[in-house]
Amino acid sequence: MTGDKLPLEPQELKPPWNNRVLEKRATQLTLIPSAWHLPEILLEIPPASSVETIRASGILSVDELAWTETADIRELVELVKSQRVTSEALTTAFCKRAAIAQQVTKCLTEIFFDKALKRAKELDDHLLSTGEVIGPLHGVPVSVKDRFDVEGLDTTVGWVGLTNTPAKSNSSIVQVLESMGAVLYVKTNVPQSLMMSDSYNHVFGQSVNAFNNALISGGSSGGEGALVGSGGSVLGIGTDIGGSIRVPSNLQGLYSICPTTGRVPWDCSFLHQHYLVPPVAGPMATSLPTTEYFMESLIESSPWSLDPSAVPIPWRKELATPPANRKLRLGVVFDDGVVKPQPPVARAMRETVDALRAADHEVIEWDTSLHIAITNLWTKGILADGGQHCRSLCQIVDEPLIEGMVVGKETDLLSHEEREQPLGLRPIPQKPSNTIKQFEATKLTLQTAFLKQWVSSEIDALLMPVLPWVGYKPKTWVKSKQWLGYTAMWNLLDYAAVTVPVARADRGLDSVDSAGNTEWEGHSVRNESDAFNYLQYDIDLVHGMPICVQIVGGRFGEEKAVAVGKVVDELMNPTPFHS
Amino acid sequence: MTGDKLPLEPQELKPPWNNRVLEKRATQLTLIPSAWHLPEILLEIPPASSVETIRASGILSVDELAWTETADIRELVELVKSQRVTSEALTTAFCKRAAIAQQVTKCLTEIFFDKALKRAKELDDHLLSTGEVIGPLHGVPVSVKDRFDVEGLDTTVGWVGLTNTPAKSNSSIVQVLESMGAVLYVKTNVPQSLMMSDSYNHVFGQSVNAFNNALISGGSSGGEGALVGSGGSVLGIGTDIGGSIRVPSNLQGLYSICPTTGRVPWDCSFLHQHYLVPPVAGPMATSLPTTEYFMESLIESSPWSLDPSAVPIPWRKELATPPANRKLRLGVVFDDGVVKPQPPVARAMRETVDALRAADHEVIEWDTSLHIAITNLWTKGILADGGQHCRSLCQIVDEPLIEGMVVGKETDLLSHEEREQPLGLRPIPQKPSNTIKQFEATKLTLQTAFLKQWVSSEIDALLMPVLPWVGYKPKTWVKSKQWLGYTAMWNLLDYAAVTVPVARADRGLDSVDSAGNTEWEGHSVRNESDAFNYLQYDIDLVHGMPICVQIVGGRFGEEKAVAVGKVVDELMNPTPFHS
Repeated sequence: MTGDKLPLEPQELKPPWNNRVLEKRATQLTLIPSAWHLPEILLEIPPASSVETIRASGILSVDELAWTETADIRELVELVKSQRVTSEALTTAFCKRAAIAQQVTKCLTEIFFDKALKRAKELDDHLLSTGEVIGPLHGVPVSVKDRFDVEGLDTTVGWVGLTNTPAKSNSSIVQVLESMGAVLYVKTNVPQSLMMSDSYNHVFGQSVNAFNNALISGGSSGGEGALVGSGGSVLGIGTDIGGSIRVPSNLQGLYSICPTTGRVPWDCSFLHQHYLVPPVAGPMATSLPTTEYFMESLIESSPWSLDPSAVPIPWRKELATPPANRKLRLGVVFDDGVVKPQPPVARAMRETVDALRAADHEVIEWDTSLHIAITNLWTKGILADGGQHCRSLCQIVDEPLIEGMVVGKETDLLSHEEREQPLGLRPIPQKPSNTIKQFEATKLTLQTAFLKQWVSSEIDALLMPVLPWVGYKPKTWVKSKQWLGYTAMWNLLDYAAVTVPVARADRGLDSVDSAGNTEWEGHSVRNESDAFNYLQYDIDLVHGMPICVQIVGGRFGEEKAVAVGKVVDELMNPTPFHS
Repeated sequence: MTGDKLPLEPQELKPPWNNRVLEKRATQLTLIPSAWHLPEILLEIPPASSVETIRASGILSVDELAWTETADIRELVELVKSQRVTSEALTTAFCKRAAIAQQVTKCLTEIFFDKALKRAKELDDHLLSTGEVIGPLHGVPVSVKDRFDVEGLDTTVGWVGLTNTPAKSNSSIVQVLESMGAVLYVKTNVPQSLMMSDSYNHVFGQSVNAFNNALISGGSSGGEGALVGSGGSVLGIGTDIGGSIRVPSNLQGLYSICPTTGRVPWDCSFLHQHYLVPPVAGPMATSLPTTEYFMESLIESSPWSLDPSAVPIPWRKELATPPANRKLRLGVVFDDGVVKPQPPVARAMRETVDALRAADHEVIEWDTSLHIAITNLWTKGILADGGQHCRSLCQIVDEPLIEGMVVGKETDLLSHEEREQPLGLRPIPQKPSNTIKQFEATKLTLQTAFLKQWVSSEIDALLMPVLPWVGYKPKTWVKSKQWLGYTAMWNLLDYAAVTVPVARADRGLDSVDSAGNTEWEGHSVRNESDAFNYLQYDIDLVHGMPICVQIVGGRFGEEKAVAVGKVVDELMNPTPFHS
């Protein structure tokens, strides 16, 4: 307020879009039946873990708890197919569980239980009358991130200005899921702009972690991570342009696949920047078989007959199976040289590599000298529109941009950059399209150089952390210098990566003064991002939180990464990670 | 000249870049050994067909003529592999023939016979000493369009300003060809800017047709078309962004494959606009087996281990074989409704369809209602940079843009366009990046709608003309309204297409007053492009010139198009088309 104005009335202090938010949240609340509202005691002082809350709520029957805690989707498919459980009963169970997860983690955006139950009944009727299933996901509920269009529902993507704008059609992945027999019932929360590892927005608020409500669920598929972690979904579909599937999967200890573009169909409605860094859709679950079953059955349904961007490569089962006649050869990155992983992450990587070596697999250290340049070019691509897209979305209702979003500023516009000319061209005046050409030329140079390193190394896959940290309270990460090098470089390269949970942070093992952590204590910080990561480490905050290993399989290397994932999973999780 | 200036001196009337051109052409001439220069009589009054000139020249031995007139590359591979012919002898033969073709068709740009013969000898030595071939093209000469980088040579692409700028490395397709054992020996002529179906530029001049030197060779892979048509190359690699492989193939009656992006590796050094319309590389030859052998052996060499943009789809032999247990189901476009094909083209299509139907294959007429919108969007994509790229290339040496190039003007810039908003977005102010988004959204809508039509039609492939015309004298096409709808739409859709020669224009059959051409005589012209095409038709000009059918196989449908091509070829060419 400046001195030449009268003090504002209280209602003027409210942002102009406040009513839209209140209305959207009120509507959302009415979509959860009152019988599924948590008792006040659980709402006011909930256990840290949503799973405990759900179990304690008494809202789900014993059967419903068992079904929703089934990690392998094939068991649920079989239950419905064999008519031992109806899709309606199964869908009701997941609706209940998602409704409770929403109350404690704010993981949902659109809720459409009525529509889901209607569809479930139709599927049950079809099976009963014909004896046939519609497809490989017949009657099983599947959740999707609020980045995909579902006809008749908002695709808010965390923007106030996009509320009350129902989608006129289904995204291709939604069409394919329905053709496979899946039942959609919820869409899940995201950060405003999607460019953040903390899912917070003005419309739906702060999504928190399924296993510790003091911590973030990650982003941008953070709501999906919290929902799947809570058991509120057996299979969630997220998207990833820099880590958005893998970060929340890591924070909730999930199995996930971030594929190469074209493997999972997605005719995304926000196509800006995609010629610089392509975003992809992929599965998140509490078991590896669920993610593989999704990929295999999806691809067997020929999505390229429906989505013009899908690539007709079949699911190559032979590549998704660990080789029978030889041991694996793997690369490993313990530390990318930019941000040193916190002790629980370092230990998780060490233990994984030790277990692999003990099983006679070969693990070699990977030269990371190209990683910084690749990550920096990724950042340049993401910021290339100078934030114009986000500004235009803010402007719809005068909504402010949330602090810390990885979004360009006008001064970032490509036309102001200076880069080398592509080969064969004399210097010519700098203009935006020339600079895009330079971006593309640099990208090609880096992709080619990295491919050379990859092919000549003859590895089956590369292991590295997903993140150099374990967990943060909400709005902490925004204040860091947000180093995403462990995940984002794979998006620029368009390489497939899988996450597999391998450990949990442990007060006993991972304290700064524990044996084995002398390196951490003596660490000299390298840069602002590293300093933040170093200083924020607090084992008391993150004790018990899951940690995943990231398994990179190369371009179109989904099957290879899954094969290595199977070996890692068997070695590291003799009992299921989520049990 | 304005009145306030003195008259110019003669040397000032010459363009400032003239010396660069003279120097480049003089150098080029020195690269052809004098023993291979045509006798003056043949140079001054050459036969219309370069093949006749070559045969009459006495420069090639009987063996050399036989080798260079072998249409199936597998026979040449076998000759070298079995050591019946050395690579050096074979390379010499093709160098001779290319040298003569150059003298009568101006098909070449870079000539590097010395380097080729050195490489051929090395390959011969390798085979002799090890008994092993380097790869599936061991010792066989392959020509490439002057759009690919060959280390140490210019990639002029028809621009004066790019002369004397040797490439610092090999394009990926060149690397792959060399790894396959091919011998590179020439690069081939193109139009300035590449955006033209007539290969003329200030550096290398006018390339003319292999079979009629009064007519154009097409473009932009026009030099390649003339060289392969002359028998100066058994396998040429062209590129296509709107018809640049298919048009010269049609004009010289060649078999060619214009693949979907990613099937043939090409890390092209001119990446501008590629996020709007992707260009592709592909083979041109005088037999279908040569094009298939190239694709199959290329793909078996795993080009994705070298080029980060190559897609790891194997060559699917089962799809490239006509189905044994059923007849084909094909779509056909006789006339796209925009430009009516001239009588020889219409007859070629009719005869092809009649032959297919007589062999019990099903041929249905295709609804072309989406074609105009797709072609128009292609044009928008091609013009999207407002001609900036070409202007900057002109500016290097003050070279003028040649009339008729399909190149944007500043007023074409996307920011001036108005289009519908993508779904889910409120109206926001028009800015360039929004308009690119709209381009992408429209493209996706059209691709999806066309895919739906394609899949629901259940066709194996679609047959249509490559061009609605047969041949033109140089610099005629530039004056037309250049309708490229028959070819360009497949680039926007990224569908694979194959050309197969099926007929020759015939004075007896295709005169305007011949029986069967009443429809042509009574035709009311539809638009400026159609009027041009109608009025320019002259059977006396094009008598004897070849005509191809275009076989579109869908996205990643190279194998399907080849399978259908085999059926068409067998029906239409009981004796080889080139003999």
